[in-house]
Amino acid sequence: MQETLAEWRPAVDAAIADVLPREVDAAYLESYFGEPTFEYDPESIQRALVDPIWDLLDRGGKRWRAVLFLVFVEAFGEKPEDYLPYATIPEILHNGTIIVDDVEDEAESRRGEPALHHRFGQDIALNAGNAMYFLPLKIITNDPGDLPESQRLAAYEMLMHELNRTHLGQGMDICWHNEREVRATREQYLEMCACKTGCLGRIVARLAAIVTDQSAAVERHAAEYAETVAVAFQIGDDVLDVEHSLGRAGDFGKAFGNDIREGKKTLLVLHAIEESDPADAERLADIIAAEENTDEEITEALRIIEDAGSIEYAKDRARALSEEALAHVDALDIDPGATEQLRSFAEFVVERDV
Amino acid sequence: MQETLAEWRPAVDAAIADVLPREVDAAYLESYFGEPTFEYDPESIQRALVDPIWDLLDRGGKRWRAVLFLVFVEAFGEKPEDYLPYATIPEILHNGTIIVDDVEDEAESRRGEPALHHRFGQDIALNAGNAMYFLPLKIITNDPGDLPESQRLAAYEMLMHELNRTHLGQGMDICWHNEREVRATREQYLEMCACKTGCLGRIVARLAAIVTDQSAAVERHAAEYAETVAVAFQIGDDVLDVEHSLGRAGDFGKAFGNDIREGKKTLLVLHAIEESDPADAERLADIIAAEENTDEEITEALRIIEDAGSIEYAKDRARALSEEALAHVDALDIDPGATEQLRSFAEFVVERDV
Repeated sequence: MQETLAEWRPAVDAAIADVLPREVDAAYLESYFGEPTFEYDPESIQRALVDPIWDLLDRGGKRWRAVLFLVFVEAFGEKPEDYLPYATIPEILHNGTIIVDDVEDEAESRRGEPALHHRFGQDIALNAGNAMYFLPLKIITNDPGDLPESQRLAAYEMLMHELNRTHLGQGMDICWHNEREVRATREQYLEMCACKTGCLGRIVARLAAIVTDQSAAVERHAAEYAETVAVAFQIGDDVLDVEHSLGRAGDFGKAFGNDIREGKKTLLVLHAIEESDPADAERLADIIAAEENTDEEITEALRIIEDAGSIEYAKDRARALSEEALAHVDALDIDPGATEQLRSFAEFVVERDV
Repeated sequence: MQETLAEWRPAVDAAIADVLPREVDAAYLESYFGEPTFEYDPESIQRALVDPIWDLLDRGGKRWRAVLFLVFVEAFGEKPEDYLPYATIPEILHNGTIIVDDVEDEAESRRGEPALHHRFGQDIALNAGNAMYFLPLKIITNDPGDLPESQRLAAYEMLMHELNRTHLGQGMDICWHNEREVRATREQYLEMCACKTGCLGRIVARLAAIVTDQSAAVERHAAEYAETVAVAFQIGDDVLDVEHSLGRAGDFGKAFGNDIREGKKTLLVLHAIEESDPADAERLADIIAAEENTDEEITEALRIIEDAGSIEYAKDRARALSEEALAHVDALDIDPGATEQLRSFAEFVVERDV
């Protein structure tokens, strides 16, 4: 999978630059956004939109959403090259959500550099992030693949559906984060992951199915594969944070238990609170709710999670989701090479951790 | 026009509540956003999305975008009642941009109460504002008017076009605001108004034309009417700020010249800098660029603007735009009653000031 990612990246970046060049002028603005009523100011658009967007894009990122889209297109028997502009849609959307999330979370840094709102100011960063929610959606209108009306409409209806659920997921996450009490069920936590991260995966898969005109069943299996992998990935991340912390807790001066310090109500925490005896459950809930924790308290919380069997529980759940994802791949009925790529992508995402 | 606004408001609010009820539960979430993969948390969605959105909506606002949509629908010979759900699209979009703009501008208050990010926190406010960019777009998918595919697609393509230009306009505005130098041309200032405010007006008009299946020419005239009125409105606002300030400058202790204090490069300022002698032009540019101004400096800036004939220039420009808007109404070839409503709407917007 790493090779496929590295191989496609230059072509994906070139396709993004076709949508939004690194240097814009009046001619580009007219061609992409239509004739101005009066007169565009390309210099302002360069400074307020193009520079911040490329500043983030040039910091890296594996472009895996674009590449997974291309893998799907190939699996569906079409030439990925013919659909490159569409591959940029989930990629630009994703990077837009990063900018907005970083403002919402008051993040300091992103990919080793200051978060965009620290470098460009909150107003420019936010407007650029929001512009990235709409910029790529116009690709469907420009219709590089010469699609019939029904496919373009299907793409828009799908995008509106998934982008709505993305905001539901972010809403749930923020709401829990702002509350001291632990209130969510495990299934609600997984729903938050499915909406917040899974829906962008669903966009990748469904868009590939729509532009290549697949059946509803194929679109559904592809979407569920991508969503399920995304949820498994999030659980894997949560497990990693606890496992690394257990290993590192003895090392002097090293930060550990970051999720607990942040008060994150992960699947492991929710499981441990439900499964521990009342005293341990209450203690864990208190540590999660506290504004500040000592290293001793973090160690205590980690032990409660470990003793409750929450690590194994979360690993089992991630493994089950991974198997579910692979069953959706099998149901796709695509050629063995493509099946292998989607299987290895799921394993690459999940096995790395759990 | 005031009467038409007051008359429709309860029906518009009821239509918004059909899209997003004041109290949501799992059944509503399933019906609007689709079945959850795992389990929704209605309580979080209530707190993070529904409460903040209705908090803002309940502060008032004339709902003129929804009502203008209904006026257009009637002008196009259809029953407004049949298209009420669509009327909420520009209204919800507009209120979403208010929330996001207030974060970007670091506004303290909105409609006499604390800005939403002060009441709910920046993370919840922003996510709610962004959710309002997508929530109403799903109405087209839900298709309350039973429109053929081509009309639904036309609506999406139009919305993507106009929402892209909205972010261009906001980008130009923010960029100029952050710069000390005065760089924009008058035509670029008008473009910013056309994009930032005019595009939401265009959405109102074009959506009414699309859902009632009008010709391309009718859609274009309606769009240009709405856009032109919005630009004239903005100029009117800028003129008002200067005219009131000239009148009030003698009153002890009253704030005046707010646009100049904020460093706003309005059409009047751009005209005055271009038309004044070099010493006055430089002095005005310096006052606009300064972080802080004394009342004497504000009075001086106002005098330079007045002496340059910028007030008359801006009034003339607004009047010309208003006439242009009315010419688009005449070109629509609708019945005299509807023509009168659109004429009086344009006059209501413009004549109030200039």
